[in-house]
Order: sequence, then structure tokens, then C-alpha cells
Amino acid sequence: MSDLDQALRDLVIANRVLANEGVVDAYGHVSVRHPRNPDRYFMSCSRSPELVTAKDIMQFHLDGTAIGGDARLPYVERHIHGAIYERRPEINAAVHSHAEDVLPFGIVTTPLQPVIHSGGFMGHRAPIWDIRDKFGETNLLVTNMEQGRDLASALGPERVALMRGHGFAAAGFSLADVVRLAVYLPKNARVLLHALRLGAFKPLSAGEIEKRIAISPSGMETARAWEYWATRAGCASLMAKPKRTPAKRGGAHRRASRR
Amino acid sequence: MSDLDQALRDLVIANRVLANEGVVDAYGHVSVRHPRNPDRYFMSCSRSPELVTAKDIMQFHLDGTAIGGDARLPYVERHIHGAIYERRPEINAAVHSHAEDVLPFGIVTTPLQPVIHSGGFMGHRAPIWDIRDKFGETNLLVTNMEQGRDLASALGPERVALMRGHGFAAAGFSLADVVRLAVYLPKNARVLLHALRLGAFKPLSAGEIEKRIAISPSGMETARAWEYWATRAGCASLMAKPKRTPAKRGGAHRRASRR
Amino acid sequence: MSDLDQALRDLVIANRVLANEGVVDAYGHVSVRHPRNPDRYFMSCSRSPELVTAKDIMQFHLDGTAIGGDARLPYVERHIHGAIYERRPEINAAVHSHAEDVLPFGIVTTPLQPVIHSGGFMGHRAPIWDIRDKFGETNLLVTNMEQGRDLASALGPERVALMRGHGFAAAGFSLADVVRLAVYLPKNARVLLHALRLGAFKPLSAGEIEKRIAISPSGMETARAWEYWATRAGCASLMAKPKRTPAKRGGAHRRASRR
Amino acid sequence: MSDLDQALRDLVIANRVLANEGVVDAYGHVSVRHPRNPDRYFMSCSRSPELVTAKDIMQFHLDGTAIGGDARLPYVERHIHGAIYERRPEINAAVHSHAEDVLPFGIVTTPLQPVIHSGGFMGHRAPIWDIRDKFGETNLLVTNMEQGRDLASALGPERVALMRGHGFAAAGFSLADVVRLAVYLPKNARVLLHALRLGAFKPLSAGEIEKRIAISPSGMETARAWEYWATRAGCASLMAKPKRTPAKRGGAHRRASRR
Repeated sequence: MSDLDQALRDLVIANRVLANEGVVDAYGHVSVRHPRNPDRYFMSCSRSPELVTAKDIMQFHLDGTAIGGDARLPYVERHIHGAIYERRPEINAAVHSHAEDVLPFGIVTTPLQPVIHSGGFMGHRAPIWDIRDKFGETNLLVTNMEQGRDLASALGPERVALMRGHGFAAAGFSLADVVRLAVYLPKNARVLLHALRLGAFKPLSAGEIEKRIAISPSGMETARAWEYWATRAGCASLMAKPKRTPAKRGGAHRRASRR
Repeated sequence: MSDLDQALRDLVIANRVLANEGVVDAYGHVSVRHPRNPDRYFMSCSRSPELVTAKDIMQFHLDGTAIGGDARLPYVERHIHGAIYERRPEINAAVHSHAEDVLPFGIVTTPLQPVIHSGGFMGHRAPIWDIRDKFGETNLLVTNMEQGRDLASALGPERVALMRGHGFAAAGFSLADVVRLAVYLPKNARVLLHALRLGAFKPLSAGEIEKRIAISPSGMETARAWEYWATRAGCASLMAKPKRTPAKRGGAHRRASRR
Repeated sequence: MSDLDQALRDLVIANRVLANEGVVDAYGHVSVRHPRNPDRYFMSCSRSPELVTAKDIMQFHLDGTAIGGDARLPYVERHIHGAIYERRPEINAAVHSHAEDVLPFGIVTTPLQPVIHSGGFMGHRAPIWDIRDKFGETNLLVTNMEQGRDLASALGPERVALMRGHGFAAAGFSLADVVRLAVYLPKNARVLLHALRLGAFKPLSAGEIEKRIAISPSGMETARAWEYWATRAGCASLMAKPKRTPAKRGGAHRRASRR
Repeated sequence: MSDLDQALRDLVIANRVLANEGVVDAYGHVSVRHPRNPDRYFMSCSRSPELVTAKDIMQFHLDGTAIGGDARLPYVERHIHGAIYERRPEINAAVHSHAEDVLPFGIVTTPLQPVIHSGGFMGHRAPIWDIRDKFGETNLLVTNMEQGRDLASALGPERVALMRGHGFAAAGFSLADVVRLAVYLPKNARVLLHALRLGAFKPLSAGEIEKRIAISPSGMETARAWEYWATRAGCASLMAKPKRTPAKRGGAHRRASRR
């Protein structure tokens, strides 16, 4: 299977995992940059992530124009993704979500910050972008590239931007990276909400956050989670064949060592 | 299929979706105004929404009398619906729910208000109606048209009325409209409950609320959610055939554009 | 089917419903007084409620002795039930549960009280019984009739007693009555927990509570919930045949009235 | 079946139960000391607990070296387990978890303590171990025996140690013991979080905690829970045959005693 085919399969897995883990519901989406052409990205047509299959994937220019005259309806808010890819060449995957427990931090002054090790993936800080600041009273949706670029600008060099009264945008080096970030961001938010009510608390230090992000999303620790999430979401058959298979399933040496 | 048949199917879908999304449990109900005769409405007989099928749908005059001598037991509280239809000609669908996270706002003075974009569907404010004010000590159920009309009067021009110690009544332009409102109202309540504990917070502005409600419930954004909710609730086969089907499932042009 | 056979079936349903609705987990139990012999009661042998089948039901004297030399292991805490039946002749069914959201109210001074209409079934107040007061330091389990009677004495004429650091005991006129009470007690507790953080709140009045309890647990409103809970728990086939069936499933008159 | 075979089966059950009850997710693990060789322990290779089968079990020296040249990838953090077995000869099973509701207590000064009877299994106190104190800024993972031993030292004679910003390590006399502890620790944490907001609360006394831990994890009370958890996790077929079977499933004497 080509790297491109696997990228498309991984995008389907990412859609289903984010839905199954409660990060997205009827709304929210995930995209991946084209692995061979950095000026394009892949994303589902306008369907809820839980229902996305390989047939639903469309291809876009970074400005949100569909490639090849694809006439299907795209997500209105795809510009969140294109604008991030445009501004951040090192970013290859993005998620937009309305995950409930992150939402309070988008409307208050208390900052969302990492307090658990799996929350470290969010990075040092999550700037809040308020669409009203520059675009006035809207329905809060990011409907064009100008708005998308303003959001990407607020995101700056960070990994997560909170969108006031709406949700968040997350940027990762790969699908596995952005999915682990998006899955654990709401968990970190819940722990922080509890801790804030108990008084002073000890967050992750800057060095700890750096060392968390440095854990390779293509390493074994993330592969274990990817297998788990994909299996739970009913997508195990779409996963790339792991290179470790022969050793993993064991043989005579393993059975002999059992006692 | 006639518009009437589809309205009845949509009513079954709405019942099952509201149950599956946790908006109603053993109790709670949803109704739709007759699409050809505004003096009548459809609603299930007395069954829990998760169990409702097309066979359970009854037809009522606005005063709650069953049409055609239908002898089945109706919901005791159907008058919530009839009274809203009577007072509000522009309203075509209604929900009554005891959704847990909305309930606190019915017994305190802190107002429920939209703080997230999907909460904007609730409108500007949700007046609290206390049955005790006019009817004294009851079992809190709305059991006749007089009580229903008093509730509808408290609702006034709004989209949601909180019922003290009991639940809420929601009014929409269509089933899709009132379902999206009812699904996201508890989510908005939860985010607000968290935000209230974190200090000052930024709610949606009046203009933003207007623009949220203006998003057509028959447009693609809501159609995506309806497909998702219906599929999750096991009702995909009851959905109206989407007009977008041919384009959506793609053909040669799409496959060609994939790389 | 005899009333006795149906009582045993209903007891199985009650076990499975309480498990499925999250009121009990590995622990907790429900019993019913013998419908023909008030000096006896039925209860499962020592199994988790979700796994209980008709074969697991044992019969006990009120003092907790198994009838007929039944050698199976009973619940250690069956004395909670026997002592309540002994003291309260009008009570025919009892539940003991560790439902999580009720537990905080057993260790603090803030009283648990009805704030939502479905919470009205708990009655006016829930006295707290602390096993330590009379029996010193124990493992908190009610292991003999002396402890059971002390608990029943603390319950007095109420419908729910909180057991400090342990759970609650609930008493009802029938299985349907005590199940609806036990299902909605945690919901009422959660709403109260939220309301307490929002400031002053309006509870149910004494008259409203009386009118809630007066809603017959054998009437249609509770039958609707019983059907729903049993169906969700996979026990629909164990339900008593409803007398309303012919009318309910409709005939020509109903189909004719549809439009 | 040998005691060794059953130990391995029980380890699979423990993995699946902890996943199914929400104690572990993609991450977290459980181990058991070798029943015949106290210098060794069993643990899955690097897989998420929900996916673990008998084939995944590896055997380790206490220093974390795989036995018999097993080349499969082990959990990076297996040293948490080996170090506890090394220091605590009476401990035969261990769990490492990131259970969400326990996490707040690892970053604040409010102590986690037992407030419900099932929480008594955690013991008198849960010391907090901060990896940063001795090892500086890390990715918070316990990646070698030196770190594992420091954690085991902080645990001391207790049953649970909280790991700052990361999770907890729990130690039990057997798999059943440590599983019941790990399942109820998050529940105890949630009840405590609620109680702390309600004001003064009454925790378990020292004597009560002792009496809770004294409840034999191989007795009937825990066997009931083990059967329930294993059945829910789809592992009923892996359970040891209960000795009570003949009596339990009843015979003529039981059927006769039914009325």
C-alpha cells in the first residue's frame, strides 16, 4: 500500500477515533496535509466524523478550493485547516472540535494549561481567539480564509488555540500526534477544573511540557494508543501493518519462557 | 412519499434521537404540528420516546382531544404542546424534557443563557415558569389546557421556558430546529455551570444569538447532524432521501481527483 | 401466570433495571415482600444484580433465615431488608444501593431533599444513620438483625435513610415504587449538588412532595417507565402482559384517524 | 488447571476489567507476582489493557529484564511494578493507572482519603510522589529501576501512592485485592470532591479502614464483584470454576422452597 493510501486510511481512522472518544460529535473535523504535495490537504466532505468512510474524503488547495472539480459539499469551516497549513509548514494534521470540557476555558480568564502528563501535548499555552474582535457579530463559524488566517495568526507557534464560545483548533506533526493531543486535552481540562476548586495546584513545568511533546508520535507508546483507539472505533482493519508483528505474537521462545 | 408520511417518520426519528442523546429518558416527549392542518398536531401515545414507532403516533386537536376517537392513552402533559401551538403560529415542533443539567437553572436565580455557539439556538433568555404561582401545590405535571396556556404565556416570544423543579419546554420552527435546540441546551448548561465557578465569563452577544438562530434548520449544517443523530439512534432508514445523493457519493471525477 | 410468579419475575426485572440504570453495581440489592405471606421476602442469593436470573431468587424469613434449607450463600446485608419489612407493614419492597451521587450527602450536614419532581418520591427528608454511633468501628456492613433494626429505626416513617460512608436504604409500596424512587434519587442529588453551588434554590414544597408520592406506582405513568427500563435492561419478555394491549396497538379506527 | 495457568488467566481478566471499568484507557497496566517464584512477575507486553490476551503475557525479573530472551516490547514503566515487588514481599499484584478523578489529588495539597466504605481499600493515606523532586524535568514516565525504587520508597507501607501530574500506583495482596482497590479509588475520589464543596465531612475512621482492608479478597464478597466485572468485560469464560457451583445453581430442595 502506498503512503498516500495509508494516509487516507489513517484519516478515516482519525475521524472515527475522535468521534468514538467523544472529542467530536455531529460537528468537528480532522484533516491531514497531502504527504507528497504540501500545498494540498485531505478532509471529509460535510459528514459527521463517526460516519466518514474512505469514499467521503476530498482533496483541497490550502485556500479551501476543492481539487478536480469535486462538487460535493465541503465543511464550511475547512478554512481553519487550510490557514494553519499555510502558516505552519511543520504542521501536517489539524483538528477542530467543540469538546465540551474545553469550552469553559474559552470564555473565562483562567488559562487552560497542562496539569497532567498526557495534557503536556497541548504545549505551553492555548491562546484564545475571539472572532468578534475583528469580524464583529457573526454566527461564530469560520467561513472564509480571512477568518481562518486570523485564527492561525492567533495560534502563532502554539499547538492549540481556543475559539471563544465555540471550540478549539489543534495542530500536530501527524495525525497520530494531533489525535493524542485532542483526546487528552478535554481530560486535562477536567482535571484542571477540579484542581482549581481545591486551591493551589502544581502544573507541568516548561521543561516537562517540552519533554512530553518530544515523545515521538510514531513511536511505540503512541502506536499502542492508536491500536487501542482504532480497535474501539471499529477501525482495526484499516491500520497499517505493524513492523513488529512477528516478534509481538511470539513463538517457541516465548512459550518456553512462560514459567 | 407524501410530506405527511415524512413528517410522521421524522417524528419517530426525533423521539429516538432525543432518547439516544440523553435529552429524554422514561419521560419527556416531542410533537410536530400537522403540516397541512395547523389546528392539529402529532405526538406518540404514552410511551417512552426510545420505544416509539410509527404505530404509536396519535393526532390531536390543539386542546389535546384525540382525533378520530383514538382510545389509546395519550401523554398527560400533551397540553404543553397544544398550548404552544395555539399561541405561537410560527412554531411547528415542541419538546418537553427533564434533561438533568438544565434543571438547576429552574430553581435558582442565576439565568441560563447561551455561552457556546450551539447554545445560541436557545435564544436570548429562558423565562422560568413556576406552576405553584398560579395553581398552588400540585404534582408539578401540566395536566390541562389552563396550565398549558399559562406556561405558553410565560414562554412568550422565546424559544425555551424553564419549568421550576421539573424541566423545560422548547419551541422550534421544525423538528430539526427543536431537536438541535434540545440536544445542545444541556451542553450549554454544563459549560455555563463550569464557567460560573471560574469567575467572569463572556456570553454570546445578542447579535450572535440572532445569527445562530438564523442558520436554517433545513440547511446542510443541520442535515449533517440529523443524519448523524438518526444513524446513532438506529433510524437511518427512516430519513428522507437527501437530494444531494448523486453528487455526494461521487463518481469518476472524484476518484480521479484523489491524488 | 400467578401473582407469585409475576412477583418473582418483577424482582428479576428490578435487579436488572437497577444495574442498567447505574443505581447498583457489583454490590447493592433489591427485595420484595412475599405477596401472600407478609412474614417472608424474596431476594437473590449473593450475586451482582445485573447477573440475577429467576433461578437465583431465595426466600427468607424476616429475620434473614433462608426458607426450606436453601444452602446457597445469601447477601450478608439482607438484614437491611428484613428489618424494614418487620417495622413497616405497609412497605413491600426495598433497595440498598451505593449510588455514587447520593453518597456525599451521607457524610456532610447539608440535607438531601427533593428539588425536582421525580425526586419527590424520596419523601420529605432522608435521615442519616451512622453505624458507628451504636456499633463502634465496623467494616460498615449491616451484618445482623440488631444492626438492621437500628437502621430501620433511624428510617422511621420515611422512605429513604442515608447510611454514613456507605449508601442508602429505600422503602416502597411495591417494586415499581421503590425502583422509580431509587432511579431518580441520584438524579435529584446531582441537581441539588449543582444548585447548592449557585446560591439560594427553591426546593419542592411539602404539599408537592405529598402529591408526588401519591402518583400511583401501578398507574400508567409508572408503567411507561417500567416498560422503558425493562426493555433497556433486556427484560421486556419478563414483563406482565399489559391490560391495555388491544387498545394500545390500535386497529382500523386508529389508522383511519391518522390524517 | 494449575495455579500458574489460573494466575495468567486472572491477569488477563484483571487487564480487561480495569479497562472496562474505566480505570485504565490506552495506557496503564496491571501485573501479578509469579505464584511460585517471588523474584519474578507477569505482565503484558506493550498493549492497551482492553486488548490484552493470554498470548501477550511476558515474564520479568524484578529488575524488569524479560525472562527467556523474550524480544517483545515491554511497557516502559514496568519498573513501577518490579520496584514495589522488590520492596514489599507481602504484595503480589500492582496497578498503575491515570484514572482521571484521582489525578486532581496528585497536584493539590488536599489529601485523598477514604470517605466511603469501598474506598477504605485504599488504606489510611496516599503519599504523593513527585518525580521532579529527585529526577528533575522529565517526561514524567518511570523509565528505570532507580525511579521505580524512589516511587516504592515514597509508597512505604501504604497501598496507594499518587504520582504528581501522572496517576497512581496501587499495591495489593492479590489481583482481586488490587482490582477492587483500583476500581473504587476513583469513586472515592469523586465523592470526596463533592463533599469538599459541601463543607465539613466525616471520613472513615482508622479502625474502619483496617476492617475494610481485612475483608478477604478471596472471600465471597469479592468473588461476587469479580464475577460481575469479568462478565461485563466479556471474560466470564476465563474465570476459575467456583467451588460453590453445585449448591449455587440449586436443585430440588431449592425449587421446593420457592413458595
